[in-house]
Amino acid sequence: MNYKMVGFVLGRIFFIEAVLMLCPALCAALYGEWNVVLAFAWPVLALVLLGLLLSRRTPRNTTIYARDGLVIAALVWVLMAAFGAMPFLISGEIPSVFDAFFEMVSGFTTTGSTILTDVESMSRGLLFWRSFAHWIGGMGVLVFAMAILPMTDGRAMHLMRAEVPGPTVGKISSKLRDSAKILYQIYFVLTVIEVVILCLGGMPLFDALIHSFGTAGTGGFSNKALSVGAYNNPFFEVVIGVFMLLFGINFNLYYFLLLRHFKEAFCSEELKVYLGIVAFSTLTITANIASLYDNVGTALRTAFFQVASIVTTTGYATADFNLWPNYARTVLVILTFIGACAGSTAGGLKVSRIIIFFKAARQDLNKMLHSHAVTTVRFEGKPLDEKTLRGVHNYFNIYMLIFALSVLFVSLDGFDPITTFTAVATCFNNVGPGLELVGPMGSFAEFSDLAKLLLSFDMLAGRLELYPMLALFSPRIWRRRGNAMHA
Amino acid sequence: MNYKMVGFVLGRIFFIEAVLMLCPALCAALYGEWNVVLAFAWPVLALVLLGLLLSRRTPRNTTIYARDGLVIAALVWVLMAAFGAMPFLISGEIPSVFDAFFEMVSGFTTTGSTILTDVESMSRGLLFWRSFAHWIGGMGVLVFAMAILPMTDGRAMHLMRAEVPGPTVGKISSKLRDSAKILYQIYFVLTVIEVVILCLGGMPLFDALIHSFGTAGTGGFSNKALSVGAYNNPFFEVVIGVFMLLFGINFNLYYFLLLRHFKEAFCSEELKVYLGIVAFSTLTITANIASLYDNVGTALRTAFFQVASIVTTTGYATADFNLWPNYARTVLVILTFIGACAGSTAGGLKVSRIIIFFKAARQDLNKMLHSHAVTTVRFEGKPLDEKTLRGVHNYFNIYMLIFALSVLFVSLDGFDPITTFTAVATCFNNVGPGLELVGPMGSFAEFSDLAKLLLSFDMLAGRLELYPMLALFSPRIWRRRGNAMHA
Repeated sequence: MNYKMVGFVLGRIFFIEAVLMLCPALCAALYGEWNVVLAFAWPVLALVLLGLLLSRRTPRNTTIYARDGLVIAALVWVLMAAFGAMPFLISGEIPSVFDAFFEMVSGFTTTGSTILTDVESMSRGLLFWRSFAHWIGGMGVLVFAMAILPMTDGRAMHLMRAEVPGPTVGKISSKLRDSAKILYQIYFVLTVIEVVILCLGGMPLFDALIHSFGTAGTGGFSNKALSVGAYNNPFFEVVIGVFMLLFGINFNLYYFLLLRHFKEAFCSEELKVYLGIVAFSTLTITANIASLYDNVGTALRTAFFQVASIVTTTGYATADFNLWPNYARTVLVILTFIGACAGSTAGGLKVSRIIIFFKAARQDLNKMLHSHAVTTVRFEGKPLDEKTLRGVHNYFNIYMLIFALSVLFVSLDGFDPITTFTAVATCFNNVGPGLELVGPMGSFAEFSDLAKLLLSFDMLAGRLELYPMLALFSPRIWRRRGNAMHA
Repeated sequence: MNYKMVGFVLGRIFFIEAVLMLCPALCAALYGEWNVVLAFAWPVLALVLLGLLLSRRTPRNTTIYARDGLVIAALVWVLMAAFGAMPFLISGEIPSVFDAFFEMVSGFTTTGSTILTDVESMSRGLLFWRSFAHWIGGMGVLVFAMAILPMTDGRAMHLMRAEVPGPTVGKISSKLRDSAKILYQIYFVLTVIEVVILCLGGMPLFDALIHSFGTAGTGGFSNKALSVGAYNNPFFEVVIGVFMLLFGINFNLYYFLLLRHFKEAFCSEELKVYLGIVAFSTLTITANIASLYDNVGTALRTAFFQVASIVTTTGYATADFNLWPNYARTVLVILTFIGACAGSTAGGLKVSRIIIFFKAARQDLNKMLHSHAVTTVRFEGKPLDEKTLRGVHNYFNIYMLIFALSVLFVSLDGFDPITTFTAVATCFNNVGPGLELVGPMGSFAEFSDLAKLLLSFDMLAGRLELYPMLALFSPRIWRRRGNAMHA
């Protein structure tokens, strides 16, 4: 491994995190929370010093191999969460190290699971910080670094691949750095539009920022104990619901729209299936919960919001869906695993992987039944090569293995099986709430420290799509000179 | 499709089923249950007549293509269960068509899930029949047919592949018919040994037969409401526990033992992992439940029995494990999915598939980290080709898709999620009991008719390893002349 280059990139990222942490510090200052401002000062200082130390000089060999990319991505995310957790500890608002780390991992990975039992008693500065982490983590901090740091394409590709979700990485521009810039511009503009609309609807600016960060990153942290339900406002419900869906769409499609390539944007197979899943789930859940609400309209709006929230892995709630009938709860759990589109800010398996599963399964069955039938699996109009197919298969298998092992270990905490199962599912898929104890009105506070650490690992593994986090545990990767020098 | 040949094979199978049904009729006669004897007379007559009609004349074209093999396997199993269910209906002991079909599918697929709420009030003849179905279904009725009917290898292979569980079919003899005979001989002898040992231990012959059928087929039907726990006898517990484990081992290994190829028998990778899983689960569950029992020995024995019962997908119980702590319950649910060895009578995914998953995942990760690392996945000493790997991947994906859709539909019945989830898991993996309402002391009686039908489909799909049951729903397969004539 190229240790010097790994250190160099880490150093640059530390600088970026220091700058980003000034935003919540400013917010705290605006609200006069001076102890919180101080709680940010120390980690910012540490980050700047570490950044100086590590990236003082550009290393002679700036090559980044595929495995270096994986390790950098994993280290960046773990360390950013660790430094990000410090203000919570220093201010004393979250006294436990494990809790603070869990909360910050949940922020950066856009999960939105919380260990806080009384969110409304937190200081503004820290509430801003954990929601701002959603916004940073949604599009990815390495993508951000690529947008603002000079870096050649060959190197950057390995970083991008390790951080952008989905079975394949679509380059929307011939230059990766331009792609990253365009992605961040779309992301920024969409977020600003949501803030403006929410403010126009009467939401206070602070709340509008918090909920727009949570929507854009598909995170789900709120500054209200009752989440979006606290406002009891159909306008906010519909706006946030629609924006959650929008942030669950592959960002490349927005770029096509900007270029006026309407056909390419609207003919996306993944988009159609994604909207189909949303429509089917919303309608059947509406039928299932209609009797609980005054009228069908309210049931439909509530069902739509909850489906949009879970399928995009955001996790906001306007109703305690833990109390819904079992069909509705089952659909929501299944949506947890599906997730939204590849190349969006959402977690889960991604709709494109689900489509590829179905198609590969049908092809295999056809091959078995009609041995001479020549069928190629096509996705988005292009034939899928064996390598991508195999990648999707292996992804799913590793995913299920980690999932089963996590459930096994978390079950040692002794909570009921639904709590255990949905806690792992919601963390691993970066959704946020589960059912029962970890339902939308519950929290992860009661889990043991070890379970919190494991769930933090699951959140990171889910956000970085498994491989970077697994790479950390490969002994061969830590050798200075591996037997695979060229990538 | 070669309809004439499909009809011919079905006809022969109907004859076999008619002969097999004489056993429970004889049992009923011995106990003087004449109305039950009559209840068997009608279906036997129908089977003989249908058999005569269909297999009166050997068709000119006796070729069986791969897809014909799949369809034959599916039809044979569905129709055998349908005819097998008739005595329950005629005798009035199970009045509902859906219930009787479910019970008989559960018998033949060696699942052992029951809709009966008072099993001890049933007639001896019918109790014998549903347990005898376990024994027939365990090794497979087509394998049986191959052993006794003259059939050339090329044709028979497609039938065998459709019925013998596991990712690959190992031929233990150069002639398939001989293989089938050897398998059935081993099966028969092992069953007789178990019956003798249980009788020597003081179990009545009828009970010994019932429990040996249930053990050999890894089914799990008992004639006692409390299952094996009713005897409260450590000797029976250990004997049945050990025999369950033995019937979960690949039968080819017994053949190697007979040939004195000890090295091949004991060096099996799958066997080692299988025993390792049993040991790990037994020890950790013992630690988890120790406080519930008087002494560690009892806890160990109970844990061993339950682990052996669930990992082999038999489903006998000596304790109401639904009341165990959550770690123990979670391990048992995970074992439900793993199942025992390929080529045994057990259900589930099979240990060999799990091993291949892990190896393929590790290989993929290695490839990603060290692009020049040349690693081949080896299983049982042989390199695994891409086709087998892809087959295992696709199997798992289709498996998960059917599983998720089944949970979705069964959840419409409105039971709690653990009941819903474990009901599907236990039926699909041919285990028998689940948790909560379908726990070892519960039953499937309260599910709706549609749910029972879907669960019957899941049991059949699980036993036949998915493809035959899916083939039934392929419109192309029903065409007389497909576009793929040669297999």
